Order: sequence, then structure tokens, then C-alpha cells
Amino acid sequence: MSLPSKVCAMLNTLANDLQNRVRIVLVDTSHAGNIGAAARAMKNMGLRRLYLVNPRLFPHADATARASGADDLLAQATVCTDLDEALAGCALVVGASARLRNLTVPLLDPRQCATQVLEEWAAAGDHEVAILFGREHSGLTNDELGRCHHLVHIPTDPDYSSLNLAAAVQVVSYELRMACGGQSLVADQTEAEKAQQADEPLAPAEDMARFYAHLEQTLVEIGFLDPENPRIMMRRLRRLFNRARPHVIEMNILRGILTASQKAKRAAEPK
Amino acid sequence: MSLPSKVCAMLNTLANDLQNRVRIVLVDTSHAGNIGAAARAMKNMGLRRLYLVNPRLFPHADATARASGADDLLAQATVCTDLDEALAGCALVVGASARLRNLTVPLLDPRQCATQVLEEWAAAGDHEVAILFGREHSGLTNDELGRCHHLVHIPTDPDYSSLNLAAAVQVVSYELRMACGGQSLVADQTEAEKAQQADEPLAPAEDMARFYAHLEQTLVEIGFLDPENPRIMMRRLRRLFNRARPHVIEMNILRGILTASQKAKRAAEPK
Repeated sequence: MSLPSKVCAMLNTLANDLQNRVRIVLVDTSHAGNIGAAARAMKNMGLRRLYLVNPRLFPHADATARASGADDLLAQATVCTDLDEALAGCALVVGASARLRNLTVPLLDPRQCATQVLEEWAAAGDHEVAILFGREHSGLTNDELGRCHHLVHIPTDPDYSSLNLAAAVQVVSYELRMACGGQSLVADQTEAEKAQQADEPLAPAEDMARFYAHLEQTLVEIGFLDPENPRIMMRRLRRLFNRARPHVIEMNILRGILTASQKAKRAAEPK
Repeated sequence: MSLPSKVCAMLNTLANDLQNRVRIVLVDTSHAGNIGAAARAMKNMGLRRLYLVNPRLFPHADATARASGADDLLAQATVCTDLDEALAGCALVVGASARLRNLTVPLLDPRQCATQVLEEWAAAGDHEVAILFGREHSGLTNDELGRCHHLVHIPTDPDYSSLNLAAAVQVVSYELRMACGGQSLVADQTEAEKAQQADEPLAPAEDMARFYAHLEQTLVEIGFLDPENPRIMMRRLRRLFNRARPHVIEMNILRGILTASQKAKRAAEPK
């Protein structure tokens, strides 16, 4: 079963919103490779608008190399000399923070951050959103954090809490995509898979019953099962095969194996 | 407000489980830098057990550089010459797949994958889990995917779907950490079921491998399988038995049936 067309339309709108209305803003990035890797992470998740505030090296071969097929995002990136320029037009600003600071800015995990972005769109219309990522070693300054409506913190092992910059962009972008229906896209695939499996229908109860009778008979013939006391073993085998939910084709294979085994055994018997 | 101590204890246990019982297995990795970045992503999320199957360059300066402070994971990494070695002792094997292939192996998104891992631990005890990540350009082979109980697919923009290897490790590891920090562990099983399953551990990967070898050999002996061309049929049978997730006891029963079938056949052969 495919998703209802209304849901599909909504998900497409959300995917377009991600593309057009979310900016990823990298502030004072030292390593050009991280810029490229961040662009790749964004594009994988359907984001396209990259803003660079005072990048140390850009454009740069390391950025292009790590961007892989996302060099179009690098080419279209907006390079800014200050944060004001990067935030112009944004009604929601979220800052990534590795440290759990003593700040009064509300702290979200990446999932809550994605929900917040979508809820605000649903409630307040068509504004743009900026998500800021600070310097590799020192993050965002207190002044920069003061520009943020929310902070987003990625839960980590407390003993080793500093993510690579592009890895952080990946996680935050992933949650945005999931919130926009990433999950339903996989669910849809699972439906497609089920549809494919429907071409391969599950074995009905009567086939299963015939299989178990055939299995029992064969196991007795090859000397595995005590014909006087088959029940416990057969119950066990039923549990196993019932868990697997065999398809009709698989059932035919299993029946074929039983028949082959019987033939092999019967060839041993005196005529 | 602090969490109740019972909840804290439970979360600590889960964090330890992640650390001790989840392996990240990188298969045939080409770029040493990706190995280092994957180690860093793991350590950030509290995972520690890195397995490398035939890495092209390892150890290597690029791996160490990208690992940043996670070089202890590189030093402790287990380097294997084949997948069997990397999967030994694992009762749950999940393979990362960028393509939505035509496979009947159940497909999960990273969130569902994390839930699955935790639910199985809650239900069935203390087994180890392997999560496989394939080659940078071609992913996992069909044979490798055939070893997996589940596939995990990270939702992406369909027009640009190939994540960097370490980025994929980051997302899957992040969801494991989120699952250990947030969601409740309610399993919809009765206590009795849990107790029974806890007494009955799932068959680990090496038992499954031995079973499949034994099955193939027996099917050839009884004339069911063409020894020149066993692969399609065996792949199909793997899928069936992988779906059933046999317990150790059930695996012993199946092996017993194969042995009985071989004996019955051999009795038919001229001495």
C-alpha cells in the first residue's frame, strides 16, 4: 500500500521547505575539509543552503574533495564577513553547542530541534531557519550563542563529547529529514516490500499443516524422531518454522527437501 | 531535576551494553581516514568495539589524524581477514544498505534499528550485536547482506543518497545512544516468555555459518541441490532461517536432523 496522496504532498512540501528555508551556518571554520564534508551531509539529507562566516580557507581543494558529489552546494555557498549577514531574514536561530552551558537559552536535543523547526513552520508560516555551528575547537562564543533562540546539543558520551563538525551537521540534518517524513519513506518502502512479498504469498495454514505432517513422517523415516513420542520435538519445530512465516515458494522448497531425503533413505531399503 | 536512581542505573546498564556488546564492523574500507572518523563517531556515542575486515590501509596516519582523541579505539580494533571472524559470537547482525534493494530482509531506519537492538536485549538476554558497513563505493555484497537479520537504511534525498562511511556510522550510533537515553524499554512480552528466552540464547553467527555449510552439504548428498550451482537456493534458505532467528537448542535439533538424513542416505550407498 502506498502512502495516501495527501500525505505524499505534505511530505514533498516539507522536503522543499528543508531545501529552501533551512540554512546551515558554519562560523569561523578552520578546516576546509570539514566544510566539504558538511556540504555532503547536508545534501544527503536534502538541505542545500550553506552559509560560511569567515572560513579560514575557502574555496579549497580539501573542501571539494570531501564534498564528493556535493560540490554544487559549495559553489552556491554564501560567504559572509559577519554573522548578521548570515542571519538576515531568519526568524528562528538555533546554535549547536557541545557544552551544556549555564545559559538561559532553551536546550534541545537534535530530535526536539527538528520538531521545533517544523512546529514553528506549522504555526507561524514561511520564515527561514538558521542553524549555527561554531569553531572546531571552541564552538560558538557567548555573543553568538546570545543570538540563538534555542541551543541544540547532541547527546554524547560525557567522557568524549566533541563531535567532528561535519558529523554534528550530519546528525542535526538527519533529524530534520526524519521529522519531514524520512521515517514514512522507509515505512513506504516496507510497504513496497510487503507488496513484493505479496507476489510471494505466505503459505496458508493448510500448507503449513501438510508440511508438518510431511516433516514428521520424514523424521520418523530417517530415524530422527521416535514415532511413539513425536510431540515435544514436533511442537518445538512448529515454533521455529512458524516464526519464519514461510512463503509458498519456500514451503515448496522445504517439501522438496523432505521428498529428496525420503527418496535417498528409501533407496537404502531392501526391495 | 535529577532522574530517579532506578532510571539512572538502567541507563548506565544500557550505556555499558552499547560499549561492550555492539560491534561496528567495517568491511573492505578503502580510505584510512574513514576508519579514523568512524572511530571518533563511535566513541562520541559511547561505542568502543571496532572490527575491520580487510582494511586496505591500516594502521595509517590518516586514520589516526581523523580519529582525533579516539585513537584508543583504533589501537584496540580487531582486524579480521574474513567476515566470519568479525561476526563470531554475534546473534544479531544488521547490515547498512544505501540502496533500497529488492530483498526480503527486513528494512529498518536507524531509529527502528536502535529499538530492535534494545528490544532484543530486553527480551532475549546478553548476546552481541554486529552492525556492518560496506565498501565506500559499492557497499555490502549480496552474500554479505545474506548474513544479516536486518538491513538499516538511512533516509536520504533520493537524488543524492550515498553518505560518507563515517557519517553513516555516526547516524546509526547516534540513534543507539538516543535509544539508551530516552525511550522506555517496555517489551510486549510476558515475564515467562522473557525467562524462557533468556534460558535459550540465540544461535551466534558462527553456529549459523556451520549450519548453512552442513545444510548445503546434506542437500547435495541427498540429491536436492546442484553442487555446481548451489548459490541461489542457499541464499533463499538463508533468508528463511535467518528470519526464524533460531535458538541454540533449535539449531542443535536442525543439525541433528541433517546428520540423521546423511546417515540414512549413506546406508543406501554401496559399501
